[in-house]
Amino acid sequence: MSILAVGSVAFDNITTPSGRVENVLGGAATYFSLAASYFTQVRIVAVVGDDFTSEHEKVLIRRGVDTRGIEHAKGKTFRWGGHYMDSLNEAKTDFTELNVFETFQPQIPADYKDSNFLFLGNIHPTLQSAVRLELSEVKLTGGDTMNFWIQRTNPELQETLKLIDVLLINDTEAKMLANESSLPRAARKVLAKGPQAVVIKHGEYGATIFFREGAFGVGRHPFRAPALPLEEVKDPTGAGDSFAGGFMGYIAAQPELNREVVKRALFYGGVMGSFAVEEFGTERLQRLSREEIDARFQVFRELTHLE
Amino acid sequence: MSILAVGSVAFDNITTPSGRVENVLGGAATYFSLAASYFTQVRIVAVVGDDFTSEHEKVLIRRGVDTRGIEHAKGKTFRWGGHYMDSLNEAKTDFTELNVFETFQPQIPADYKDSNFLFLGNIHPTLQSAVRLELSEVKLTGGDTMNFWIQRTNPELQETLKLIDVLLINDTEAKMLANESSLPRAARKVLAKGPQAVVIKHGEYGATIFFREGAFGVGRHPFRAPALPLEEVKDPTGAGDSFAGGFMGYIAAQPELNREVVKRALFYGGVMGSFAVEEFGTERLQRLSREEIDARFQVFRELTHLE
Repeated sequence: MSILAVGSVAFDNITTPSGRVENVLGGAATYFSLAASYFTQVRIVAVVGDDFTSEHEKVLIRRGVDTRGIEHAKGKTFRWGGHYMDSLNEAKTDFTELNVFETFQPQIPADYKDSNFLFLGNIHPTLQSAVRLELSEVKLTGGDTMNFWIQRTNPELQETLKLIDVLLINDTEAKMLANESSLPRAARKVLAKGPQAVVIKHGEYGATIFFREGAFGVGRHPFRAPALPLEEVKDPTGAGDSFAGGFMGYIAAQPELNREVVKRALFYGGVMGSFAVEEFGTERLQRLSREEIDARFQVFRELTHLE
Repeated sequence: MSILAVGSVAFDNITTPSGRVENVLGGAATYFSLAASYFTQVRIVAVVGDDFTSEHEKVLIRRGVDTRGIEHAKGKTFRWGGHYMDSLNEAKTDFTELNVFETFQPQIPADYKDSNFLFLGNIHPTLQSAVRLELSEVKLTGGDTMNFWIQRTNPELQETLKLIDVLLINDTEAKMLANESSLPRAARKVLAKGPQAVVIKHGEYGATIFFREGAFGVGRHPFRAPALPLEEVKDPTGAGDSFAGGFMGYIAAQPELNREVVKRALFYGGVMGSFAVEEFGTERLQRLSREEIDARFQVFRELTHLE
């Protein structure tokens, strides 16, 4: 079934120990959509400027992504520059130019309103809430946020959390959102704010999903999926968004939603994150096959499963 | 089969967000021996001072540990003080008084010389090598080290690594030992120094074992075991040594040594580490049952295994 992804499309300058690229297509919604496109139909709502050409759009179209929800505004596309010279776990931002993204007001095309799955990328929580409330057919909403919104728009974010079924954030964000240094306690506090489940992403150590009692089935035990111990990570940019795309994409493609599906989705999230970091920007995500993805899923299984 | 553990016995002062204890029995060899005692016969070689009473020794004897290798020297036992107020992942040392441990020369009782499994705790690498070379029946040697030895006695440590089958270290130590920021690359470099396998412990994120090609069976894929997401960690002291005790203890108790045994051992390492941190010092490790341990092994399996 269709996933609607709302978030940023950007051009990035990225420096890592493996090299440097400039003006490469990026943004959370781009990584998410490409990753999810290997599992299901994806629709995207975003804003771009005059510098976003039909060549850029074709990157998404070739993967079957419905790009009619991309608004073309006057001005330049969101631009971000960052480097990972000290640690591959954390980007240091060199510059952020919001450009047309600064006044982004997501417009949902009429044809998108029957979307059953929704991913709310990291945008202002009030915009996230507005998008969710416009869609009446949604079965599952995934959402992201970041430190900036946790600190600057906390009351609005608390309202958004009531509308999100699965929140996907990293360790630092979880601890900040819950004001709690223990991850399991942070997870419990986040779940009390509304979501059925929270996925906490640990970078190279994988991710853990914590469930509300009874969410997606029986029990409230957490579940953990690994990340692949890769000898070379060329570019960590977009790993978290690709994880979200694999996670949501797998779920959207299943005939039913239960706890076992969610667990497998967590593994597929790790799989897509592991592909994303193998090359700069979205290069690797543009030319995968479902066979490669399923083969890596088996590698992830062998990495963690006893006989 | 019997494991011989060589390392420190200490008295610790520990402060964590959950409270404070003083002069509690600790030390790497103590945690290791108690954890391994639930799987197999353990023999300990260590040195203590006049302040180590028969009551302290009974903690080990009650768990069936053979304490005849504990040397009673004139003076005070090794004492360590530390706190975990900022982060439970890293101890800040308040004081270290080596006392009788400063001149520790491990003496292996004649009755211990037939030990089939050996664990070389974190002591001077030259002492580690000497112990290993005294034992002719050893089938598997596990070893630990720390930043101090990596920096101060690197040539000696390189010689010791040729005698160790499985090195158990944490992320920081692995990166320092290999002078490499990527963990998988660090693991490959460490394996080139001698060990058949290296276990890299990630604290709350579990542990990964990297194998030499063909070590303990076919293949060279790594394997990852989780840690339990515990809401309350009372005292992280000794978690790594308890991990090593569970890992080596499980292996020593199996009729044969193959890759599946090593993988299960990695899970049992995580299990024993998760018990150790539930109470201060060695309290929890003193009164476990094999049933509790196997029940938690199942929890670890459910935490990571797909249907």
